[in-house]
Amino acid sequence: MSNLRVGSAFDAHQIQAGKECWIAGILHEGQDGCEGHSDGDVVSHAIVDAVLSACGLGDLGSFVGVGRPEYDGVKGVQLLGELKALVGKHGFLVLNVSAQLIAQTPKMGPVRGECERVLSEALGAPVSISATTTDHMGFTGSGEGRAAIATALVQV
Amino acid sequence: MSNLRVGSAFDAHQIQAGKECWIAGILHEGQDGCEGHSDGDVVSHAIVDAVLSACGLGDLGSFVGVGRPEYDGVKGVQLLGELKALVGKHGFLVLNVSAQLIAQTPKMGPVRGECERVLSEALGAPVSISATTTDHMGFTGSGEGRAAIATALVQV
Amino acid sequence: MSNLRVGSAFDAHQIQAGKECWIAGILHEGQDGCEGHSDGDVVSHAIVDAVLSACGLGDLGSFVGVGRPEYDGVKGVQLLGELKALVGKHGFLVLNVSAQLIAQTPKMGPVRGECERVLSEALGAPVSISATTTDHMGFTGSGEGRAAIATALVQV
Repeated sequence: MSNLRVGSAFDAHQIQAGKECWIAGILHEGQDGCEGHSDGDVVSHAIVDAVLSACGLGDLGSFVGVGRPEYDGVKGVQLLGELKALVGKHGFLVLNVSAQLIAQTPKMGPVRGECERVLSEALGAPVSISATTTDHMGFTGSGEGRAAIATALVQV
Repeated sequence: MSNLRVGSAFDAHQIQAGKECWIAGILHEGQDGCEGHSDGDVVSHAIVDAVLSACGLGDLGSFVGVGRPEYDGVKGVQLLGELKALVGKHGFLVLNVSAQLIAQTPKMGPVRGECERVLSEALGAPVSISATTTDHMGFTGSGEGRAAIATALVQV
Repeated sequence: MSNLRVGSAFDAHQIQAGKECWIAGILHEGQDGCEGHSDGDVVSHAIVDAVLSACGLGDLGSFVGVGRPEYDGVKGVQLLGELKALVGKHGFLVLNVSAQLIAQTPKMGPVRGECERVLSEALGAPVSISATTTDHMGFTGSGEGRAAIATALVQV
């Protein structure tokens, strides 16, 4: 019997005018960021949830808790670093993670490689980043918010 | 060549005032449930679809059929039990399933462990449950409905 | 350490009155198709993105480019054929893909098997197709658009 496990997750946050835009581990200049406890990085949050779910170690809520001031504004890269430590402590190896931003902005094509390098280094495993829009439909299409999905493959 | 296969699925149902709320295999007291042929358990339905898709055995529609009265109000746990029998008969072993509720209610944190135990026992394989909201955006954010995603890893 | 990788993706397009409806690799007579550079086949697009992401080979945008006239109206089957060549050139083997249409139309039950045959032959790997609706909620429920998700498992 194989010792592999899969996990997937979705995340969504409202866009907040004037907030720094941290998406997929990097700062996107000239863009409004997302609300939320922490930096609102939907891509990093989906990655954390997908890896935790693959490992059966709870979810983002149990990982960072609610109302814990030390996580106010915490960056996705820091979350992935803490995630790496947690899953390693439990004996899991992350084989890879695939994540996709679902949003009209920011444009990810020019920075996709940089995001992949930053997130892969933080997690200690290959992270692939893609991006799509909803063709101006729904809450991600209207600019009200952003969403992301992620899937992780881990070895016990 | 590896004998592993992956499957993923999404499900969504409208919330129906006054209906029992069965989500992720358990009854959530004091919450409105979801419409739908069967108990409207979006999490269980996404799990069934993901496992069937990984095995190439059709989808929820072909599994429970439409207009079959024996499935009116059928519970997620029963569906997962029938799914376990079907995939076993075809020689598949479910390695694990990761599922996520996308909804404003019910709060899953306090009952996540219970849901995981109930669903894992019914399916005969580890099931991880997580939950997220859409920050009050879209049809899951307004309280109009609930959605879920699931991903399954199986061995042929 | 296992040599497997997973990838997942979402795609969405607006429905365009009068356009041919190509979904999951086949023509659906009597249905309006989807807008978009290419044939608007959300299922095929999600498959391409999921496989590329699993392989770490970019995304649909980098694969077909933007403003390249040779991809105007390109069919999903052709995209999957080019994808097969690309991933093979990079030494990847696609173990399987699971994709789901999220839309009120067309009805996929009667043609699911045909779609699976067409897409599996084009990709050279098993492709499972399922379908669900959003119970008339959101942009896929109102008939404004269609969406799809896909997850791929590949071997390095």
